[in-house]
Amino acid sequence: MFKGVDHVVIAVKDLEAAIAQYEQILGVPATERGEPAGAGFKNVFFRSGSSYVELVSPTSDQGPVAGKIARTGEGVHLVAIAVDDLPAKLAELRGAGVRLVGDPGPDKPITGQVFVHPAAAGGVLTQLVQR
Amino acid sequence: MFKGVDHVVIAVKDLEAAIAQYEQILGVPATERGEPAGAGFKNVFFRSGSSYVELVSPTSDQGPVAGKIARTGEGVHLVAIAVDDLPAKLAELRGAGVRLVGDPGPDKPITGQVFVHPAAAGGVLTQLVQR
Repeated sequence: MFKGVDHVVIAVKDLEAAIAQYEQILGVPATERGEPAGAGFKNVFFRSGSSYVELVSPTSDQGPVAGKIARTGEGVHLVAIAVDDLPAKLAELRGAGVRLVGDPGPDKPITGQVFVHPAAAGGVLTQLVQR
Repeated sequence: MFKGVDHVVIAVKDLEAAIAQYEQILGVPATERGEPAGAGFKNVFFRSGSSYVELVSPTSDQGPVAGKIARTGEGVHLVAIAVDDLPAKLAELRGAGVRLVGDPGPDKPITGQVFVHPAAAGGVLTQLVQR
């Protein structure tokens, strides 16, 4: 069951410029600058308790972050929703035929990250997380 | 100071279809169906404590929700960020020259809703709220 909006991931072209904007808006420093291996983006976090804003910026023309900016420009790439029983929720959505991204297949257990496809969530790439 | 992601507002073309999607994803019923006077959209809420997802759908070709869908399609229209002292934060942003939407002017007190313009927040229309 729904336990609130957990975090948002925002895709930007110029990471340093966006960091300056968000440090001013949020009043907390950017932390954990990183570049996940093979993901095609670099990222940074603004945290408050378990909630956060993540900024991501493409490091190549490939990958989902570059694709998002190419399609619709800068803005929200992903919304993460907190639920109280993630395995049960994913099994329920899979059983109902909801379109998922990263589903290893109906005969295989879900082990990695699985997202609800934007076509099944009002145009929003939706991650479900358990706090 | 940043106190977490408070809520998101998602713009959709077909409100009933999106309600069905989100009732399944979130596992809670849509509540408070409404149509704010003169706003050009109808809306509905999915709540968990003080956090929520709001779906909005245009009722005319005018207004910000129709404009968002025309520009970039369905998806996140607004992200609301919780801060601990809203008047101080808005005064600070105004003083720093951050581009705001709905600012009545530097000589007038802020009384209504004021948003950070997407151009000043990584492409995201950003509302600041105090829980």
